[in-house]
Amino acid sequence: MGNCDIGLIGLGTMGSALALNIAEKGFDIAVFNRTTSVTRDFAAEAGPLADRITPAESLQALVEALKTPRMILLMVPAGKVVDDQIAALLPLLGPDDLIIDAGNANFNDTNRRMAELPGRFLGIGVSGGEEGARHGPSIMGGGPRANWDRAAPILTAIAARYKDQPCADWMGEDGAGHFVKTVHNGIEYADMQLIAEVYGIMRDGLGMDAAAVAEVFRGWNEGPLQSYLVEITAEVAAASDAATGGPVLDVIVDAAGQKGTGRWTAIEAQHLGAPIPVIDAAVTARNISALRARRAEMQAIFGAGPQPITTDAPEMAVLEQALICGKILCYDQGFGMIAAASKQFGWSLNGAAIARVWRAGCIIRSAMLDDMASALEAAPDAPLMAAPTFADHLKRTEGALRRVVALAALHGIAVPAHSAALAYFDAMRTARGTANMLQGQRDYFGRHGFERLDDGTKDQHGPWAG
Amino acid sequence: MGNCDIGLIGLGTMGSALALNIAEKGFDIAVFNRTTSVTRDFAAEAGPLADRITPAESLQALVEALKTPRMILLMVPAGKVVDDQIAALLPLLGPDDLIIDAGNANFNDTNRRMAELPGRFLGIGVSGGEEGARHGPSIMGGGPRANWDRAAPILTAIAARYKDQPCADWMGEDGAGHFVKTVHNGIEYADMQLIAEVYGIMRDGLGMDAAAVAEVFRGWNEGPLQSYLVEITAEVAAASDAATGGPVLDVIVDAAGQKGTGRWTAIEAQHLGAPIPVIDAAVTARNISALRARRAEMQAIFGAGPQPITTDAPEMAVLEQALICGKILCYDQGFGMIAAASKQFGWSLNGAAIARVWRAGCIIRSAMLDDMASALEAAPDAPLMAAPTFADHLKRTEGALRRVVALAALHGIAVPAHSAALAYFDAMRTARGTANMLQGQRDYFGRHGFERLDDGTKDQHGPWAG
Repeated sequence: MGNCDIGLIGLGTMGSALALNIAEKGFDIAVFNRTTSVTRDFAAEAGPLADRITPAESLQALVEALKTPRMILLMVPAGKVVDDQIAALLPLLGPDDLIIDAGNANFNDTNRRMAELPGRFLGIGVSGGEEGARHGPSIMGGGPRANWDRAAPILTAIAARYKDQPCADWMGEDGAGHFVKTVHNGIEYADMQLIAEVYGIMRDGLGMDAAAVAEVFRGWNEGPLQSYLVEITAEVAAASDAATGGPVLDVIVDAAGQKGTGRWTAIEAQHLGAPIPVIDAAVTARNISALRARRAEMQAIFGAGPQPITTDAPEMAVLEQALICGKILCYDQGFGMIAAASKQFGWSLNGAAIARVWRAGCIIRSAMLDDMASALEAAPDAPLMAAPTFADHLKRTEGALRRVVALAALHGIAVPAHSAALAYFDAMRTARGTANMLQGQRDYFGRHGFERLDDGTKDQHGPWAG
Repeated sequence: MGNCDIGLIGLGTMGSALALNIAEKGFDIAVFNRTTSVTRDFAAEAGPLADRITPAESLQALVEALKTPRMILLMVPAGKVVDDQIAALLPLLGPDDLIIDAGNANFNDTNRRMAELPGRFLGIGVSGGEEGARHGPSIMGGGPRANWDRAAPILTAIAARYKDQPCADWMGEDGAGHFVKTVHNGIEYADMQLIAEVYGIMRDGLGMDAAAVAEVFRGWNEGPLQSYLVEITAEVAAASDAATGGPVLDVIVDAAGQKGTGRWTAIEAQHLGAPIPVIDAAVTARNISALRARRAEMQAIFGAGPQPITTDAPEMAVLEQALICGKILCYDQGFGMIAAASKQFGWSLNGAAIARVWRAGCIIRSAMLDDMASALEAAPDAPLMAAPTFADHLKRTEGALRRVVALAALHGIAVPAHSAALAYFDAMRTARGTANMLQGQRDYFGRHGFERLDDGTKDQHGPWAG
């Protein structure tokens, strides 16, 4: 039996950063990487933290370096590598040892592994990129509560702080931690897309250059939109390109990559029947962005979409309000999806706890999340948009969102996420929608039956069935 | 060895109708249902077709009634029942016998079954509801071509006719038939939602009653929108309710059900990275429609969404054009998804053949599909929206779509599918989009790297990385 508090497998960018973070917080950590030279280099470059780091050149050595019962963090690529690593570890471990997958797992895989390793597995979502992993990520834990409690002293110590509260918490059973991380990433896609659309209006509709765009976002970061993503938007827009001397933004190709977690969110929402149209629009926008050659061909046929907004141009405050409105509606959808999952999977996900964990460390961290935590604390079962603070925001800003969507529609500027937010708002506030037409059609062609509005009788058919 | 040309298992609504259709076309058919009384009743009620129908009271009897090599159609509920039925049949069959799943399978299941039963399985999508099954459905076949060719004489005989051409064809290998059927259903959701949105503008924005709505759709069914769904929309809107004497439409609850195939389409599109935002919006609209209590609560907080359009009210021709524009963009997405699947799965799906099969028998049948078949025949690799006929349509109607989306946005009327269609059009025709901002942000927080616009170098980083 060794003296290390925890082991870590996988010294890639995120794994290395987490290991240093753990050592810095005063824990002794044993580390292992498949390629031994990586392990050696990592230990050699750990500087003053080297005393707390035990490089292990075999899994056996890693396991032997740990206090029992053991805890081992996996920071390896999601998917088969995780399964392989677990299979290689298991023969070396005792029944009370705990494996913690801190990688970017699909929560369905985490559910499966949890069932395969009852009481011995924990799945945690870690957000914040390399910088977060090194100095304080947001940590979303899932699995048996007792397992979380064992790992919590280390995980809360290394997590980001919002004021004095650690942004690490137990989300729920099974793969709940990775599920919440997935929704986080979906929201991240949507937050980014909403910003990109406002940027498009500024650039293509209003003819603003990158410096002017940077200035506006810098200002917004002092107001209700204060957030990491708005902050870095200003930085990105302000940055100069060494080669051209012009804005970096203007030399970046407009085809966005993705690692798939936004897509997972869209897919899981469909399985749950939970509407998240702003996130859907954001994922779709990335897919369309990737069709760059196609877009150029279509521009040749139809002419470029965006036209200058020459009359009735919106003030910056209108764009700011539209962005606030779209953002709130997006978060309402995200928390709604979380509530649907909680019900579907028999978890007891706590929206307020989730909002609190997202307040620092992660990519979507923002001032507004603190208000969301309060709102969800006060009324855990109500939708976010119904909370007084956010209902007030929406009432004050919906007019701006309407104006922006209408202007964009008339000027050929694509604002799919804003449009989706507005359509969601209008559909969600309409007690009498238009799905009666769908039900009439469905009954006509498929005898699916409908419910009557007047007396609530179900499985009724129209006279066409006669 | 028996004398029947084909066997059929599962005498539910669709199975019974298909069996009668087969018998009517001059084929001898043996039928089996798990519940023997259902089989007996079916044969007893077959009237003049009874001569061609052999009721079998066991699987063994069914198999013995068939000519060899045998063909057996499964018309049982999708999922486990299909697997169970196959398992029960296999011991009774010879190596050259063919099992044809004509149910509503998820194409991933069909792929799996195809691999488990090499050369002995065929998956066909059958569209058209009970009426179609009885008198001529649209049939989308998938699996080994040789298997299709064996079944084709019967399947083309029972299929719908467009002019003199049968709407039954081989789509491709594996689960291609069920895949195409899935996309068909996704498009069906979207076609219906686009119609429901226009209905919403008429009812809530323009104060039209159901009879007036019926009149307009009846007129549209004489023009470019001529289609089964527009036809039945007029019928549904015109129908009177026996209990109230008023329009049936007004007593139908506005919460739409779904059997999941629209959802499958949305999920598969995400797996493929294929943008189908109009279909996504339609599926989401159904999910929102189901949240009826929630919508009433939100209306109490925010007031009802829809406001009367009192100035600048659109003519009916504007709504018609918007619907045409939205529909074309939806089909562009659907055929785009099919092309993406063809590439991804190594199929050689033929867009023109698919459009031809959809021209009659199925729910989305329409005049426009004949033009689509011609367009996709002429330029198989080009997007539908780029085909001259449809590009002309889009140029002529895009202004109407813009106006409708803008008016709806300003008047609180939710038009998510129209909005998504417009945003898709504008994003797709914009060579220089706004995803450069996304790439800048991603590089800033995650060092994901970007491509340079000027010299095409990849994996570049902004100065923030320094």
